[in-house]
Amino acid sequence: MRRILLIGAGKSTSSLVKYLKEKSEKEQLQIIIGDLSLENAEKFAGNHPNTKAIQLDIFKAEERQTAIKEADIVISMLPARFHIEVAKDCVNFNKNLVTASYVSDEMQALDEEVKKKGLTFMNEIGVDPGIDHMSAMQVIDRIREKGGKMLLFESFTGGLVAPESDTNLWNYKFTWNPRNVVVAGQGGAAVFMQEGTYKYIPYHRLFRRTEFLEIENHGRFEGLANRDSLKYRSVYGLDNVRTLYRGTLRRVGFSKAWNMFVQLGMTDDTYTLQNSENMSYREFVNSFLPYSPTDSVELKTRYNLKIDQDDVMWEKLLELDIFNPHKKIGIKNATPAQALQKILEDKWTLAPDDKDMIVMYHKFGYEIDGKTSQIDSTMVHIGEDQTYTAMAKTVGLPVGIATLKILNKEITTPGVLRPITKEVYEPILKELAENGIVFQEKEREYLGYNVDNVVG
Amino acid sequence: MRRILLIGAGKSTSSLVKYLKEKSEKEQLQIIIGDLSLENAEKFAGNHPNTKAIQLDIFKAEERQTAIKEADIVISMLPARFHIEVAKDCVNFNKNLVTASYVSDEMQALDEEVKKKGLTFMNEIGVDPGIDHMSAMQVIDRIREKGGKMLLFESFTGGLVAPESDTNLWNYKFTWNPRNVVVAGQGGAAVFMQEGTYKYIPYHRLFRRTEFLEIENHGRFEGLANRDSLKYRSVYGLDNVRTLYRGTLRRVGFSKAWNMFVQLGMTDDTYTLQNSENMSYREFVNSFLPYSPTDSVELKTRYNLKIDQDDVMWEKLLELDIFNPHKKIGIKNATPAQALQKILEDKWTLAPDDKDMIVMYHKFGYEIDGKTSQIDSTMVHIGEDQTYTAMAKTVGLPVGIATLKILNKEITTPGVLRPITKEVYEPILKELAENGIVFQEKEREYLGYNVDNVVG
Repeated sequence: MRRILLIGAGKSTSSLVKYLKEKSEKEQLQIIIGDLSLENAEKFAGNHPNTKAIQLDIFKAEERQTAIKEADIVISMLPARFHIEVAKDCVNFNKNLVTASYVSDEMQALDEEVKKKGLTFMNEIGVDPGIDHMSAMQVIDRIREKGGKMLLFESFTGGLVAPESDTNLWNYKFTWNPRNVVVAGQGGAAVFMQEGTYKYIPYHRLFRRTEFLEIENHGRFEGLANRDSLKYRSVYGLDNVRTLYRGTLRRVGFSKAWNMFVQLGMTDDTYTLQNSENMSYREFVNSFLPYSPTDSVELKTRYNLKIDQDDVMWEKLLELDIFNPHKKIGIKNATPAQALQKILEDKWTLAPDDKDMIVMYHKFGYEIDGKTSQIDSTMVHIGEDQTYTAMAKTVGLPVGIATLKILNKEITTPGVLRPITKEVYEPILKELAENGIVFQEKEREYLGYNVDNVVG
Repeated sequence: MRRILLIGAGKSTSSLVKYLKEKSEKEQLQIIIGDLSLENAEKFAGNHPNTKAIQLDIFKAEERQTAIKEADIVISMLPARFHIEVAKDCVNFNKNLVTASYVSDEMQALDEEVKKKGLTFMNEIGVDPGIDHMSAMQVIDRIREKGGKMLLFESFTGGLVAPESDTNLWNYKFTWNPRNVVVAGQGGAAVFMQEGTYKYIPYHRLFRRTEFLEIENHGRFEGLANRDSLKYRSVYGLDNVRTLYRGTLRRVGFSKAWNMFVQLGMTDDTYTLQNSENMSYREFVNSFLPYSPTDSVELKTRYNLKIDQDDVMWEKLLELDIFNPHKKIGIKNATPAQALQKILEDKWTLAPDDKDMIVMYHKFGYEIDGKTSQIDSTMVHIGEDQTYTAMAKTVGLPVGIATLKILNKEITTPGVLRPITKEVYEPILKELAENGIVFQEKEREYLGYNVDNVVG
C-alpha cells in the first residue's frame, strides 16, 4: 500500500477524496485524512476500507512530522499561508508535495533544495490557478510547435451559480469564500496590456470597464480585469505578446450593479465603522450618504447613484433588503466590507439544492507565416450538488490526478513547479476530459484587441 | 540683545523675518537665520543690522547644538519630520521652541519633560493649523462663557489664487506644495459627523460631495471634506457636538473638474507607470482608457467621463494641453500623481505678478437657554506679491508674534502646546487683526446641518 497524507479537509476536498477512494484498490492506496477536527476528517474518510482519519494540528511540529514521515506523498489543502511548515518537513523527509495554492515567495525559496533532492512540489494545480494554466499552455505550445507567434492572450475564469439555481436579480450566489468576492480587485490599480500599450484601471472604475464574452449554449458573460494580468507573462513565455489580459467572469449586469457598492464606499476593508454591531442595514447605507433633515435614505441613494426609479439597479438593491431599519449588522468593529458581506450572505448563500458552475474562457491570437488567426477555448462545468460542487471537482480532480501521476513516476520533473509543461498538463487534461471537464475550441478571425469587432 | 534662532529658510519665512526685523530694535532682538544653504539664509537676512545668516546642517549634531545653545528661543520652519532632533536639543539646553507644524507623536512624547523644565513648545501656529485653531477657539470659548452649548462646528480653509490673478478655467494655481494638492484626500475614506451620525466618503467620491459657501464681496466657494474631521474633537472640547466637519476650500467647479483625474486614476501615487520618462501627455491619458483600433484618445476620454462636447469640463482639459502627443512626462518611474503634477505645473504655476489668497470659513451652531443660533466667521487675505504671499504672511506672522510673546513671558504655559487657550489666542489674534488679518462674524438662524436651508 502507498500512503497518501491529505492535510486539511475543507469544502473542496470532497471530489478529491472521492477520486482517491475510487482509485485506492487498483492503485493500492491508503488515504490518511488529517484535520484539526477529527470529526471533519472522519466525515470525509467515511467507512471506506482504504481511508483513515486522524486529528492533526499542523502547528504541533511533532504531530505534523510524524504524519509526514509515514507518508509516501503529501497533499496540503490548508489555507495557502499554512503550507510552508508542511513543505519544509517534506524537504527534510524526502516527500513529494501537491498543493492547489499560488507559489508563495517562501515556497519558491525551497526550489533549489527540492531540486537537489529530486523531489516534485506541484503547486497551483486546482482550477484557477490550475486548469487555467494547463488548458492555456496546451494551446500555446501547440501554436508554437506549428511555428506560430503569440500575439494575444486573454483568460477569464468565474465561479458562478448554475443556470437552474440562478434565482436572483444579481445572477450570483456565493459559491466560494464570500470575503474574497467582496474585496476582489482591491489593493491598487489593475494593470494589463492591450496592443502593445500598458493600461491601468483604478479600483473604483474596475466594474465599469468590463468585456462581454459569449459561450454557445451558455449565453453571455462579462469579464473584469484581475489586479495583475502581467503576472504570468514570463511564466507562459509571452514576453513579446501585444495583448495580455486576465480576468474574472460574471453574468452580464453583475458588475454594473456591484459598482453601486464600490461607489458608495461599502467594499472598503481598510477602516472600521463606528457602532457597527448595533447598526441597522439602513443606517449602514445612510452612513455613506449626506445627512438631510428631510430626504429618505432611498431617495438619497437614488440621487447619489443616479438611479431612475424604473432602473433594474434599484430592484437589485431592494432584493437585498438593504434599507431594512430592523436587521442589524451585528459584528463588532466591522469594516464596511464585512458589513456588506453580512447583508449579502442573507441573500446569496446557496440553498441546499443549488448547484454551482465554473466557467473558463481563453483567447489566443497568433500569427503563422504572416497569417493571423485566433482560437477561443471555453469550458463550462456544472456541479452535481452541494457536496460535489463544480468548484470541488475542478479543484480536487487535478490535485488527485497529479498526486497519482507523481506517485506512479509519470511526472518526475524535480522542483517547486506549476503545471505548465507538457509532461504535466497532457495526461492531466486527458483524464479531466474523461471526467467531463472538457474544453471547446473555435477558430476565428484575429482582429487584435478589438472587442466590438470594429473595422478601422 | 535676545537671540532668536530661525532654522530653515523656506518660502513662508519671508513675512516672519520681516516681522522680526521690524520688531528687532524695540525688542532688542538678534535674528540668526540658519539654513543648509548659506546663500538662502543670507537672502532672508539681507543687510539688516540685527540679522545674521549661518550655514546650518541640522543632521550635524554639533553644528545644530552649538547654534541652539547660543539662542534664547528657537523657531523651526523645517519640514515637519525634521523638527524632532531640534526639539530634543531644546529640551536639553532649556530653550523654548516654536513650529507651525502638526504635533507629531514624537513631539507629543516630549510633553512631560518639557513641562517639568517649564518650557513652552508652541506648535501648529501657522495658518492651517494655526489661525484656524485660534479663531475657532475664540468663538467657541465665548459661546461657552455665555452658557452656550455647542451643536455644530464646521471649518474650511483654502489656499487659492487671488481674483486679480485668477486667469484660468480651473480658478486655481499652485500657491503651495503642488504634490500635496495632487494627492489631497488620499489614504482612506473621509470621516466626519452630521447631526449625530458618522458619515464616510470614499476617496473616489470626495470631489462630488462638496458644500457651497458664500463670502460677502468674495463670491462663492466649495468645501470638500478633510480625511479626518474628528481629529480635534476632544482638543476643542466638542465631544458632544452633533455636527463636526473640517474641509478644504476651492472655487466652485474645481472639484467637479478635478474629479475627472480621480476617475481616470491619474492621482494614484501607489504604483509607477511603465516607460513614464518617454511617455507623452497623450499617452499618459491613453493609458487610463481602453485600447481601440479606431477611436481617438479625445473621444474615448469624453465617452469614459460622459462629457458633452459643449461642457466646460472639456475646455478645462484642453486648457491643460493634456492631449499633446509631443510634450513628455520626462520623469523616470513616475507615479500617475507625479506625471499629473508635471502636466499641471506647466499651467498652474504662479506668474511673477500673480497674487495668492487665503480663505477661512467657520460655522458655529449653538444653543443658549433653549434658543439655537449660528455664527459664521470668515477671513479672506490676499498676498502682496510673490515674496510676501498671503500664505507666507498668515503662516509667518502668528509664528513671529508667538515667538515674541513667549520671549517676553506673555505666554508662559509649559508643555507641548497648540494655540487653543485664551492666553495664547487672544493677544495673537489681536495683533494679527492690527496686521490686516481680520475675521468677519455674522449671526444667522441655526438650521442644523442643512446646507440647502430646507424646511422639513
